[in-house]
Amino acid sequence: MSQDAAGPLTDEELRTLDAHWRAANYLAAGQIYLMANPLLTEPLRPEHIKPRLLGHWGTSPGLNLVYTHLNRVIKARDLDALCVWGPGHGGPAVLAGSWLEGSYSETYPDVSRDATGMERLFKQFSFPGGVPSHVAPETPGSIHEGGELGYSLAHAYGAAFDNPDLLVACVIGDGEAETGPLAASWHSDKFLDPVHDGAVLPILHLNGYKIANPTVLSRLPEAELDELLRGYGHEPLHVGGDDPAEVHRALAAALDDALDRIARTQRGAREDGITERVRRPMIVLRTPKGWTGPAEVDGEPVEGTWRAHQVPLPGVRENPAHLRQLEQWLRSYRPEELFGADGRPVADVLACVPEGTRRLGSNPHANGGLLLRELPLPPLDTFAVLVEKPGAALHEPTRVLGDLLEKVMRDTRDRRDFRLVGPDETASNRLQAVYEASGKAWQAEVLPVDEHLDRHGRVLEVLSEHLCQGWLEGYLLTGRHGLFSCYEAFVHIVDSMVNQHIKWLRTSRRLTWRAPVASLNYLLTSHVWRQDHNGFSHQDPGFVDHVLNKSPEVVRVYLPPDANTLLSVADHVLRSRDYVNVVVAGKQPCFDWLTMDQARAHCARGAGIWEWAGTENGGEPDVVLACAGDVPTQEVLAAAQLLRRHLPELAVRVVNVVDMTRLLPHDEHPHGMPDFEYDGLFTTDKPVIFAYHGYPWLIHRLAYRRTGHPNLHVRGYKESGTTTTPFDMVVRNDLDRYRLVMDVIDRVPGLAVRAAGVRQAMADARSRHHSWIREHGTDLPEVAEWSWGG
Amino acid sequence: MSQDAAGPLTDEELRTLDAHWRAANYLAAGQIYLMANPLLTEPLRPEHIKPRLLGHWGTSPGLNLVYTHLNRVIKARDLDALCVWGPGHGGPAVLAGSWLEGSYSETYPDVSRDATGMERLFKQFSFPGGVPSHVAPETPGSIHEGGELGYSLAHAYGAAFDNPDLLVACVIGDGEAETGPLAASWHSDKFLDPVHDGAVLPILHLNGYKIANPTVLSRLPEAELDELLRGYGHEPLHVGGDDPAEVHRALAAALDDALDRIARTQRGAREDGITERVRRPMIVLRTPKGWTGPAEVDGEPVEGTWRAHQVPLPGVRENPAHLRQLEQWLRSYRPEELFGADGRPVADVLACVPEGTRRLGSNPHANGGLLLRELPLPPLDTFAVLVEKPGAALHEPTRVLGDLLEKVMRDTRDRRDFRLVGPDETASNRLQAVYEASGKAWQAEVLPVDEHLDRHGRVLEVLSEHLCQGWLEGYLLTGRHGLFSCYEAFVHIVDSMVNQHIKWLRTSRRLTWRAPVASLNYLLTSHVWRQDHNGFSHQDPGFVDHVLNKSPEVVRVYLPPDANTLLSVADHVLRSRDYVNVVVAGKQPCFDWLTMDQARAHCARGAGIWEWAGTENGGEPDVVLACAGDVPTQEVLAAAQLLRRHLPELAVRVVNVVDMTRLLPHDEHPHGMPDFEYDGLFTTDKPVIFAYHGYPWLIHRLAYRRTGHPNLHVRGYKESGTTTTPFDMVVRNDLDRYRLVMDVIDRVPGLAVRAAGVRQAMADARSRHHSWIREHGTDLPEVAEWSWGG
Repeated sequence: MSQDAAGPLTDEELRTLDAHWRAANYLAAGQIYLMANPLLTEPLRPEHIKPRLLGHWGTSPGLNLVYTHLNRVIKARDLDALCVWGPGHGGPAVLAGSWLEGSYSETYPDVSRDATGMERLFKQFSFPGGVPSHVAPETPGSIHEGGELGYSLAHAYGAAFDNPDLLVACVIGDGEAETGPLAASWHSDKFLDPVHDGAVLPILHLNGYKIANPTVLSRLPEAELDELLRGYGHEPLHVGGDDPAEVHRALAAALDDALDRIARTQRGAREDGITERVRRPMIVLRTPKGWTGPAEVDGEPVEGTWRAHQVPLPGVRENPAHLRQLEQWLRSYRPEELFGADGRPVADVLACVPEGTRRLGSNPHANGGLLLRELPLPPLDTFAVLVEKPGAALHEPTRVLGDLLEKVMRDTRDRRDFRLVGPDETASNRLQAVYEASGKAWQAEVLPVDEHLDRHGRVLEVLSEHLCQGWLEGYLLTGRHGLFSCYEAFVHIVDSMVNQHIKWLRTSRRLTWRAPVASLNYLLTSHVWRQDHNGFSHQDPGFVDHVLNKSPEVVRVYLPPDANTLLSVADHVLRSRDYVNVVVAGKQPCFDWLTMDQARAHCARGAGIWEWAGTENGGEPDVVLACAGDVPTQEVLAAAQLLRRHLPELAVRVVNVVDMTRLLPHDEHPHGMPDFEYDGLFTTDKPVIFAYHGYPWLIHRLAYRRTGHPNLHVRGYKESGTTTTPFDMVVRNDLDRYRLVMDVIDRVPGLAVRAAGVRQAMADARSRHHSWIREHGTDLPEVAEWSWGG
Repeated sequence: MSQDAAGPLTDEELRTLDAHWRAANYLAAGQIYLMANPLLTEPLRPEHIKPRLLGHWGTSPGLNLVYTHLNRVIKARDLDALCVWGPGHGGPAVLAGSWLEGSYSETYPDVSRDATGMERLFKQFSFPGGVPSHVAPETPGSIHEGGELGYSLAHAYGAAFDNPDLLVACVIGDGEAETGPLAASWHSDKFLDPVHDGAVLPILHLNGYKIANPTVLSRLPEAELDELLRGYGHEPLHVGGDDPAEVHRALAAALDDALDRIARTQRGAREDGITERVRRPMIVLRTPKGWTGPAEVDGEPVEGTWRAHQVPLPGVRENPAHLRQLEQWLRSYRPEELFGADGRPVADVLACVPEGTRRLGSNPHANGGLLLRELPLPPLDTFAVLVEKPGAALHEPTRVLGDLLEKVMRDTRDRRDFRLVGPDETASNRLQAVYEASGKAWQAEVLPVDEHLDRHGRVLEVLSEHLCQGWLEGYLLTGRHGLFSCYEAFVHIVDSMVNQHIKWLRTSRRLTWRAPVASLNYLLTSHVWRQDHNGFSHQDPGFVDHVLNKSPEVVRVYLPPDANTLLSVADHVLRSRDYVNVVVAGKQPCFDWLTMDQARAHCARGAGIWEWAGTENGGEPDVVLACAGDVPTQEVLAAAQLLRRHLPELAVRVVNVVDMTRLLPHDEHPHGMPDFEYDGLFTTDKPVIFAYHGYPWLIHRLAYRRTGHPNLHVRGYKESGTTTTPFDMVVRNDLDRYRLVMDVIDRVPGLAVRAAGVRQAMADARSRHHSWIREHGTDLPEVAEWSWGG
């Protein structure tokens, strides 16, 4: 598989490509070390050196090499291309590439493409008030943060879906390649449609080491690595060495070969209707870690070892020998040949650089909001369930939503800018109506018994939450829309990924040049209260807590209590931009409480009094029964009904909360209620019994500043679960209607004695439940057959 | 690679193996459906059927087949063996196997190995008050919960490490194989020492479908799958078909082949010193999903399709045709040949079953606490740093801990029951002293430049938090000790795994037959305040919030403020059992505050007043400065010093909290302080300024029930980060000393006017910081050179 050493390059091309690479290497090293004297117009002195030396040199020369060579093929073939830089720690490289091509200075005019700008480029890097040390939202041309490792290839596939003319190169570090999410991502090719999707070109960069250890893949015999990559569905093209000219030639040849193969496959699929899955090309690039940097420092080998990972010469400011060595290193790139006296890159350096939006740092796909179109969302009334009176009928909320999503899928059939992703749970989550409009993406073998598999489908199902999340992130950041439906408990698998995406959005929202992108929308269903059949391992409502720790500009959490409120929330989140929206909703039959109009109004407020459910009559209530989530809402309404029956003189107010962040103070979240509004709903001095879907202390964490907080008593999930019945789940966690009535009696002053009999009746009902379930394995008929209207 | 169809079985063996398998299949189906008439001694009637039909039939026949055949080889070769059942949804299968062999009835005597016990086995399955539908802690012989998918193979390797005579078989479902953690786990063989570790035998079970979709690996051409598995380092042995006799023969042959290869490799390494890595055998088992179940239901194909995933005949209680079909299905196993009239399995069924602790359900490795030995922990004083007065010297706490761990590693050299795991960060986290006692496990190529790689090492470093966590869980659950050191931000990668481990421990603690195991200990370092160089992507202190949502019986969180307190905490957590301990500690130079004796006493209390740091004099303080975490402690002490200087008449109390759960109410966590103790520390009415390491609202969530809560004001990390200096990080998040002094002045009644000048001086200092850092890129000298003693 090794490439012909002669390769496709003329000597002139070789010379100019190498000039570009040397210039990029110079700029990368300069960013790590220098705050003055950027062109080395005078001998290097300690005061030119930054006081804190930060950055990752090791991966930078390899990334620079890829940037240089992608430039060549983009220009030669007029490609529309992105690159996802997995080893994003090598921020200096990607910054160098975009500065050389001019994208950087167009984005940040004060960092001009001249000596002044070069000095700013150097000084700002990893400097307080400057730019991060990794590839980040601040980096032009990037859709991928270089902090946490593992997601580059999934992001690349996400960017390629439904972008038939796009090439997404993806550099994968051999460190990152050890992570689970990356290991799973290799199989993404089974979901990539050569007709409607673009191409992904993985470049596995084996520089041999991670922070302090060799990497697994770099130490496999080449034949074994080859088998692995072929087993992943690829045709690996190997490039390697430490002689720049040879590596330039071989890499150019490998890129040409890979792009020719990609073009052939796309032509075959698009023009000749070929549906056979073919091995897709990829490049294995073996170059030394810290290549062209110091070979040895203080007698220890550095170039080609893990010691080149960060700052190869650490003591430059204090140690004259290190300073000299740094100067030699920097001068080895011959900056005087690469930059004019004014600091501008000379023509040779720029010979390979493409023009305008073809430049990697200026491709609009990497600033996806520029390409984003409004999602065609249908009028909700077509999909709303008819509610003649509250609680008279049951619907499965996610199934109702499925009909809406089917319409969205249908109305984007030609535009192809909406995807539904999920870990093999679309139908389990009752969203299968979408298959009428689009099947499930699948390029592997299809058998007659299969249903809804579709070479051109836009529903992505794979048993990996990591892939679902990574694909969707890549898809959204390149300007499209989507929804991730997931079992509530297992969305914790992507806790760390959503952290990074929220951080990305928080930062990108503050960059005026980044256009807003569609929000990342989660539909969490098969939730804690209705995993009674799968048991304890499937019960965890803590994702809401997790995201609510993050930047309030970005995170939104909704718990619609029925089908129509779910429709309203879905409509809202699908229209929104630059948020992470978490929607928790049930898939099991659930009472319809609100008409579509009521639902719209209620969701717009985010929290409100359900007058029809309470017994207050104009005055202040004696007690507030609050609820958030479908199951708690049902239990609160059942409790309200019991109170109405047994204690009709008690003034009960029922409050339902859809938008959890409304509970926060106004100055802590844009949706936070002002105190007067909170006090108007919850009172300042009456007992509030709050039945919440998740961990009860979350409500305290949101509401602890409110005047009425000392009267707030919350019930929720407290890790008491097993395989049992739905009602037993709420009883085990003290969230059941009987317990809520007891809570009211215990907390409303004066009721304890007056309502002792009612309290005993509630305790008896709980006992009856326990005996019944032990014997019958089902819920009490009075619970199973309960309805509000009855 | 296909096996000789004749194989190693005699006809008699084939007959008895098949009898065992049929019996297991019968029992698996019986558990899903029946609550009476277990032996079908009368025609099946609706009242014999459970009211709620739950369970996963699809995977069960395959798991039963593996159980049957493992029995054979264990018995034939007298193997010490475990099996990790990745498709643990197939709980009925593993319960069937352990009931047949008698382990189940020995563990749960009321579920006897007779007709009465069989009826109980059936009824209890997925029945309220019974057993979960998945393999779970309740399942004898298991170390692996069958809920969330992805971790089976990592658990298997964890169990095999340092168990040279153990065989760990691991069934991997083709659904699970799509997950990231599982995909990464295949490379675990590069870390398995054939001399000191046991063997792992992966059995990839391709039944073709997950919940509703085909699986990726089952739809690869066999040659491509073969390349993939060989690329992972395995020699795949293929077994498949739907004719039971043929599959029995082929599987028996493949198992013999695999075990022969394993024995040869182990002999070679152990007796002949062979160090070359060899391909390790694995089995690819292709059998139909729901094999031997209903071929069709209501005209739709079921056996061999995704429709067999859960309950193939859903309407049995209501639908007479389904009931008839169920009866035919159950009778197809000919239960009358398999069980006596008393319900006991007949001799043929039990012919393959091994004896005593060789049985999979009775192997003590799967109840690891039985094998657990006390960890030899050295006296702490040897490692303590000398503290003549508080704040006079600096140490890197994790480096000090490294010396202790080196000693533990050394003292377990022969026993080999302690491991340190981490994602390529042991040295980055300053724990590299351990390499003196044990290098890093590595079986791949070694180059001269490498350091500390060791074929027999017990330090496990791989760039996958998932693997670190999975290996350690497997290691601990089989009765050994360990510590996971991790960058604080990226431990979120295993949020979902730690959920499952906590759930496992919560349940296993309640099972009297499960002996306590060593706690899972996290050392989180490179934490939020000192990721100033890596920036925003590396800043997240929310893991503490995540684990504190979980069962209080299991979770413990410690934030030692200096080196000696870290030693004391480490000693405590390494001795503890059945907990998940989260320890957050810095690796950067940090002032030493407490002597070893003081540290011990302080950690034993978990929270206490640092009299030497405050200015109260017997009476009540005017204000409490509380702190948790090393950086907040430093800022609080600096603030206390500023107050002492500028407002000497103010009575300031300094409280340090090490054990975060002490803040919880006594009835919510075993470590929670009684109110009188909390009030004694924090007062009931004085302002408390609490400087906390993580998200500030966590402190409110812990303390909201306390009388003094309205006076509690918390500072912490609020997602304000970038690449900057350490002090700028605390300023950005309002946790700096100057801000804390301003908070005191703003909150102590009467100070606002009196101390207006001091407040202005503090505000000026913050301004000075901002100007200085913009110019110099470093921290103010007064901060950089600050010390308590100075």
